Amino acid sequence: MSESPRSNDFQYDRKQLRWNGWGAVGEDFPFGEREAAIWQWIEDVLGGEPLKAHPPRSLEDFSLPKSRLSKAQLRKLAAVVGEDQLHIDHYERLFHAVGRSFQDVLRLRYGGIERAPDAVAYPANHDEVQELLYLCQKLGIIVIPFGGGSSVVGGVEAPANAERPVLTLDTTRMRHVLEIDTCAQTATVQTGIYGPDLEHALQPEGYTLGHYPQSFRYSTLGGWIAVRSSGQQSNGYGNAARWLVAARMATPQGEVRTQTFPNSATGADLNQWIAGSEGTLGVITEATIRLTELPARRDYQGVLFPSFEAGATAIRRLVQGGVPMSMMRLSDADETKFFTAFGEAGKPVSPMRERINNLLEGRGYGDDKALMLLGVEGGATHTRWTMARALRVCVAEGGIPLGKGMGDKWYGGRFDMPYLREPMLDRGIGVETLETSTAWSNLHALHTRVQHAIRDAVADFSQNPCLVMGHISHSYPVGASLYFTFVWRMTPGDELAQWRRIKAAASQAIVDGGGTISHHHGVEADHLPWLRQEKSALSFEALRAAQAAVDPQATMNPGKLLPPKEEN
Amino acid sequence: MSESPRSNDFQYDRKQLRWNGWGAVGEDFPFGEREAAIWQWIEDVLGGEPLKAHPPRSLEDFSLPKSRLSKAQLRKLAAVVGEDQLHIDHYERLFHAVGRSFQDVLRLRYGGIERAPDAVAYPANHDEVQELLYLCQKLGIIVIPFGGGSSVVGGVEAPANAERPVLTLDTTRMRHVLEIDTCAQTATVQTGIYGPDLEHALQPEGYTLGHYPQSFRYSTLGGWIAVRSSGQQSNGYGNAARWLVAARMATPQGEVRTQTFPNSATGADLNQWIAGSEGTLGVITEATIRLTELPARRDYQGVLFPSFEAGATAIRRLVQGGVPMSMMRLSDADETKFFTAFGEAGKPVSPMRERINNLLEGRGYGDDKALMLLGVEGGATHTRWTMARALRVCVAEGGIPLGKGMGDKWYGGRFDMPYLREPMLDRGIGVETLETSTAWSNLHALHTRVQHAIRDAVADFSQNPCLVMGHISHSYPVGASLYFTFVWRMTPGDELAQWRRIKAAASQAIVDGGGTISHHHGVEADHLPWLRQEKSALSFEALRAAQAAVDPQATMNPGKLLPPKEEN
Repeated sequence: MSESPRSNDFQYDRKQLRWNGWGAVGEDFPFGEREAAIWQWIEDVLGGEPLKAHPPRSLEDFSLPKSRLSKAQLRKLAAVVGEDQLHIDHYERLFHAVGRSFQDVLRLRYGGIERAPDAVAYPANHDEVQELLYLCQKLGIIVIPFGGGSSVVGGVEAPANAERPVLTLDTTRMRHVLEIDTCAQTATVQTGIYGPDLEHALQPEGYTLGHYPQSFRYSTLGGWIAVRSSGQQSNGYGNAARWLVAARMATPQGEVRTQTFPNSATGADLNQWIAGSEGTLGVITEATIRLTELPARRDYQGVLFPSFEAGATAIRRLVQGGVPMSMMRLSDADETKFFTAFGEAGKPVSPMRERINNLLEGRGYGDDKALMLLGVEGGATHTRWTMARALRVCVAEGGIPLGKGMGDKWYGGRFDMPYLREPMLDRGIGVETLETSTAWSNLHALHTRVQHAIRDAVADFSQNPCLVMGHISHSYPVGASLYFTFVWRMTPGDELAQWRRIKAAASQAIVDGGGTISHHHGVEADHLPWLRQEKSALSFEALRAAQAAVDPQATMNPGKLLPPKEEN
Repeated sequence: MSESPRSNDFQYDRKQLRWNGWGAVGEDFPFGEREAAIWQWIEDVLGGEPLKAHPPRSLEDFSLPKSRLSKAQLRKLAAVVGEDQLHIDHYERLFHAVGRSFQDVLRLRYGGIERAPDAVAYPANHDEVQELLYLCQKLGIIVIPFGGGSSVVGGVEAPANAERPVLTLDTTRMRHVLEIDTCAQTATVQTGIYGPDLEHALQPEGYTLGHYPQSFRYSTLGGWIAVRSSGQQSNGYGNAARWLVAARMATPQGEVRTQTFPNSATGADLNQWIAGSEGTLGVITEATIRLTELPARRDYQGVLFPSFEAGATAIRRLVQGGVPMSMMRLSDADETKFFTAFGEAGKPVSPMRERINNLLEGRGYGDDKALMLLGVEGGATHTRWTMARALRVCVAEGGIPLGKGMGDKWYGGRFDMPYLREPMLDRGIGVETLETSTAWSNLHALHTRVQHAIRDAVADFSQNPCLVMGHISHSYPVGASLYFTFVWRMTPGDELAQWRRIKAAASQAIVDGGGTISHHHGVEADHLPWLRQEKSALSFEALRAAQAAVDPQATMNPGKLLPPKEEN
């Protein structure tokens, strides 16, 4: 059961990756033969003018301000990493100018990139990173750490008004597994390693990290830790804040390192300060991570519930009861409808399917049907027993088991969705996601509140229907995450402003409704305005003070994670 | 299955508790009829003069320096909590002068208490605590938070050279469960509540926190959080840093509060800064904690292994394999021998027992035998299946299941051991414990190193044999805790100095050997000298800076947790 990465060395050559969109050049959403039918279906759903694809702008259409680094400064930087690992060319600067948020991709495709790093450096190891940070602090150069660059909340962009020059520090040459401890089941790894390369190194030894965020193929270990990332199987393998055992971090004031203790009662857990630091303290260069034995079996199945509420109760029972699932993912009624229709667009109507639908409706499974995908991984007996136990709980809450077909289909396409955004943008359709988490007792109220906020924000500028879909993908005894996907027709020329209004309305609904502004995407720049509602001014004082101890001159990724002091 | 506390209201009347030893007045170690035989056996083991009990000094023998608080200051303090909740009498000051470490109890029984708080206040709620902290900061009064006072590492003692007056803030009037959320399975509780009272409130509702440190009866929720405490069933219920969902903390600069999100990616997890803060940031006044449904069944069993190594491998397999145990506790050969002999002292030699021993020896279970106690809690099916699965793994590693008798015996007496210390001190026998944790790959090396360090330190001053016993009581996929108990004959007049030498040697062996200076007792004052070896100077800078943001005048429990800046 090995994840064979599509390509094992793309991280060396940035040109194999799209500079203006998701993933590798030549990889696209697998529409197959149904492409035309799918666009027709989307056009029917959203209404308005017939959809027409407008190609994005080309690389040469973008002009960037000249690098502000002097020759002397560049010479000093090159002395650390080597001439060939310091770049100031157009491609490298544009590639590293922004991340992969909705607004990033929109601007990369249609214009609006006003700033870019003044240089990009690729250090080889901790010592080079440390030397770079000392040097940049001394020279007054801002440093932005960059792994896969897949941030969807503005994590790798230079601050708008930066007067100091900016160096982007690309970590992806630091890609080696340094040690595997088979007794403690840990690996110590350089953090610039991409997801597929990491699993490629671990799985032949019989282990897995089991961390598969949707960005898996194009994000790095360091990025996962820096934003407290969660993988799709977080129920089974934990999230970055959980599987991080120890970290090594270079800061402008020197090294901060934590140790591989399984547990310690010696004050604050510094791993939980490093995890989620979003490049604002330093660069996490090495990490010791907790491994799991590669599972002998995987079982992913679908269950249909009469409602989102019934499915959510099943998840709550399972997670509070300690049933060792790897994944529980529950779509709400709108998302269930969307995926059903999306999957059927362009296919002949099956009379069997219609009969099944009628039958379901007769049994009370109407418009509110909610699809759950359940996953269990592990030994054969464990997998069989756990799935049986889970299905019993689901059935008790009104679920109808749909078998493995649905689960396998999801599993096969689980990294594909990000590729759908660009062909939609080509056609003037916006698609955005955002997420939160809250206690079980508040889950449905928050779900409804955010749905309404998004719909209302779109209705403010558009007569066309919009799609607002939600799902639970990470669950805990205390509560669960809520992930929203929404699709709308953009008004040409007003795309960014409209997106900002939706994003602001949804974010405000989240924090007003008792959710966290991010369950797993991070704060970075885009979520900062709403963070004040969940953390107090005094908390920020403490966090800023700790930060200033390791980065007194705000060298590291300024403008992210913490509001500036004067805005308390 | 309810834990009925022996007394439900002792926390109001400090006079029902021993001022100079463990637990409640009138409660003693349950020697039963075997007392004389047990002392005879201990005398035989340790050698030397016949044991003779010397009673401790009485309350009146202690003289404390006069309270340095002026009448005006006392009036202001009393205005916050009420006249009747501010104490400066001899009993209250002596009761709150120290905790329950070896040196604390020794000094309380035989003299050597030179300082005590200048007053003791019992605030009723968060607001009163907040007001006290503002006032004390303004008046230059040191504040020491005090819950059960069961710290074994110097957590509640005033700094030796404090020039400012000291107020001990006793939290135990804050003892109410504020809310139980049955959907999210959380409770919000005032933190001065004692263990038994907490379970007494939760269990009738069908829930448990499941946190049973050995100090359970005489420690508080706030204390558990403040030192990152672990309960005996931490495998099943997690430790304080895990079950803490949200905290409310009063600091000299105001309130710091975290929210009840199940998970969040918004930067540092402040719960992990508050947990383990040891009273140095402020007073944790309220906490939202994760509950579990009260288990329908408990199954505790014994397993005998041919060696500590074999038993440790079984624990590692179980915890890395995700088998949902509540507890796995493995004694090393010396502890196994001790408990066997202790349990048999004064009992007639059973011919059956001798035959069993011969049989075991014939099968290779010789002097290295190691006893494991396994616990599973939960529903009937879960308990049966999990225990069966665990026993299979144990047998595969050479374990011989001993059945429930041994488990039930341990369970019944699991809070008794602390009562053994004082009758031993009466007889000039020192008994002390210390603990650490490390990765599995380092466990046996560290175990041996610490054993030798303790033996060598005792041999430096004594010809008598000493007992050094160890066990694993908390385990994780990455590693486990090691807990040492050692017993030695003290040289009259030199008790404290000798203890200091053993403690220093063991602590140095722990940090040199790759262990943390504390898995669950905390740092406080006594472990501070060794903390520098596991955290870097730069980490301390960051932690001190964060601390100074909430407590700029070092009002809160100074001299604990973090080394002073000048000692970097």
